[in-house]
Amino acid sequence: VKLARRAHRVRVPGFRFAGVRAGLKTRGPDVALIALDRPGVTAGVLTANRAPAAPVVITRERLRAGTASAVLVHAGNANACTGREGRRTVEVSTALAGTLLGVPAARVLACATGRIGVQVPRDRLLHGVRAAYASLAGDGFARAARAITTTDAFPKTAVRRVRLGGRPVTLAALGKGAGMIAPELATLLVFVCTDARLDRRAARRMLVEAVAGTFNAVSVDGDMSTNDTILLLSSGAAANPPVTVRSAGYRTIARALTEVLEELARLVVLDGEGASRLVEVIVRGARRDEEAQRIARAIAGSTLCKTAFAGGDPNWGRFVCAAGTAGVPLDPDRIDVSIDGVLVSRYGRPVPGSLAAARRRMARCEFRVELRLRQGRGRGRMLAADLTVAYVHFNAAYTT
Amino acid sequence: VKLARRAHRVRVPGFRFAGVRAGLKTRGPDVALIALDRPGVTAGVLTANRAPAAPVVITRERLRAGTASAVLVHAGNANACTGREGRRTVEVSTALAGTLLGVPAARVLACATGRIGVQVPRDRLLHGVRAAYASLAGDGFARAARAITTTDAFPKTAVRRVRLGGRPVTLAALGKGAGMIAPELATLLVFVCTDARLDRRAARRMLVEAVAGTFNAVSVDGDMSTNDTILLLSSGAAANPPVTVRSAGYRTIARALTEVLEELARLVVLDGEGASRLVEVIVRGARRDEEAQRIARAIAGSTLCKTAFAGGDPNWGRFVCAAGTAGVPLDPDRIDVSIDGVLVSRYGRPVPGSLAAARRRMARCEFRVELRLRQGRGRGRMLAADLTVAYVHFNAAYTT
Repeated sequence: VKLARRAHRVRVPGFRFAGVRAGLKTRGPDVALIALDRPGVTAGVLTANRAPAAPVVITRERLRAGTASAVLVHAGNANACTGREGRRTVEVSTALAGTLLGVPAARVLACATGRIGVQVPRDRLLHGVRAAYASLAGDGFARAARAITTTDAFPKTAVRRVRLGGRPVTLAALGKGAGMIAPELATLLVFVCTDARLDRRAARRMLVEAVAGTFNAVSVDGDMSTNDTILLLSSGAAANPPVTVRSAGYRTIARALTEVLEELARLVVLDGEGASRLVEVIVRGARRDEEAQRIARAIAGSTLCKTAFAGGDPNWGRFVCAAGTAGVPLDPDRIDVSIDGVLVSRYGRPVPGSLAAARRRMARCEFRVELRLRQGRGRGRMLAADLTVAYVHFNAAYTT
Repeated sequence: VKLARRAHRVRVPGFRFAGVRAGLKTRGPDVALIALDRPGVTAGVLTANRAPAAPVVITRERLRAGTASAVLVHAGNANACTGREGRRTVEVSTALAGTLLGVPAARVLACATGRIGVQVPRDRLLHGVRAAYASLAGDGFARAARAITTTDAFPKTAVRRVRLGGRPVTLAALGKGAGMIAPELATLLVFVCTDARLDRRAARRMLVEAVAGTFNAVSVDGDMSTNDTILLLSSGAAANPPVTVRSAGYRTIARALTEVLEELARLVVLDGEGASRLVEVIVRGARRDEEAQRIARAIAGSTLCKTAFAGGDPNWGRFVCAAGTAGVPLDPDRIDVSIDGVLVSRYGRPVPGSLAAARRRMARCEFRVELRLRQGRGRGRMLAADLTVAYVHFNAAYTT
């Protein structure tokens, strides 16, 4: 899958960015620093993995304050399964960043991605922190986006501009997340930087809602990697009247946030290790949204369905069979299946002559698989990558 | 993985077997018939899939009687997602078998495996039923075992002989189940035939217990295919005092049953589509068995772990990370990981110099991955196949 490279020269008032090489990856920049000119309201959604990485443990603690001054990210080593020494690495490196920036370490959040079970070479990281601090710049966004990548084929960014109380505000998001997502364990990191002024409750709520509709339709909480982190950082430099849950601007900025996360989610799936196709799995007509979502998840997560996606095979029986594993009562004789609008099965029976057209749709790099259950009005949706030979090659070769 | 072919010339008193070609598969025999000389006590464990195939729907109903006279099996077409017409096919074909055998259709059970969403060519099937009836023989066991296979590389059988009240009794099991098992959707069919006399409650209980310790450690109930069926059929021809839940012989025969199912389970995993390795995942020291089992399942089901198995990569961090997705509280700093007895991580830290030895163990076609949690005494266990390039090739090419 090829995507046009976008060189975002975006600036977000109140933010500076850096991306430098510290030698943690085999090549390319691998330490990113995002710094706010003054502490800003911050919200986060962190992995539900029960063996969280050291940076996640510490960032979760520090997020309780509701404000932050910087985020330090490194790629190439996840600092996961590294015990007390790993946590010490986070403390030492964020303390250095804090000292350089003139803020307490407790206001510096930390994220990491890469190999598991190996200590971070601390000297290199500290060297990287110094270099990153030295190169912080208002136009460093694209460099930071590149520095957080690991096996990603391209940096992932999304930008929206909206008006709040007459003032223009920017949302600029950078993310990484190669690896076949869900039910997999590749690290997902996303940082949304905005100059909007937000109150804490509004920031938290809009982030949780936007993640629910986008990244949680890609990667299940419970299936998240040791390091997954999604942060919303606001500098407040736009000086708009602060957005609260009840203010008029809430929906405007919440929608923009959902849009940037949706855009990043699609880029992440498209860049799945070895993925060749982005499949939107939609389930309609369930008794409840929650049941529809479980079924969509079962289809998106089934390797038999994922290989059918890769093979461009409109094997609707596999989709119904995978739906049957979700633990939701089904009547297969009432289910319709369509592929990008081509009805291949109606009331559980094949639609004669439909397969050739369906196969043509599945040859595209993006298509939709839709199940209609005829039980009620519940809807669910998942984004899935296919499962290709390249994926297995990649992951069998990737070494400890 | 190569296994010595075993030509089982086994006979089970009170049983006759047939395996014939009806043209449902592209080649080889594809209709099997197992007939009891007189109705015998029968128990079954059937798929929990919510879109069960037509034969499953009807067999589940007929099993309520607790006795059966025959099992009709066909391979090449699963008769799943086939609606009312599919159920009619089951009724018609079992009625024909019943007429030929001189028993009511309600005493003929049915199973199928193969393609989903396509009607069974009924004429061919009925032709197969007649041919199978004509060739029923006491020594037809191996032919029946061959006729139920689909993508299996070899027929799967296991036999045990034990003494009950001084009398020799036989348990002979035939099974099929290629496809990467759990959390996958390849059909699992297992038929255990014994001449032991069992009462209904004893038959049911020993089957449920034996499945829990063996096949449920391979394939999750909820993840089962549309067609999975495990049956225990007893002819009673051994004329032993009937085995009840409380009788002395119960443990003897229950243990033999567990052994044949364990043997078949291992053969099924070894024959997984494209699988190159059989991995036993053991979790010790959890708070409860149930939690240990959930963690074992998470590791066995993770494609990142499965590709590490295939690559022979002692990537213990991936195993801990996958364990973290099971939703069970963990302290990664207290976990030990070993591979076939080689400790690669102790208290969450790598054991220096262990990786070369671990890599050598992982080059074998069977090895053990063991996590020790240090929380309590709970134990869990799963059998997993690895995930190879061949699997993806196979499943992307397999067509509707």
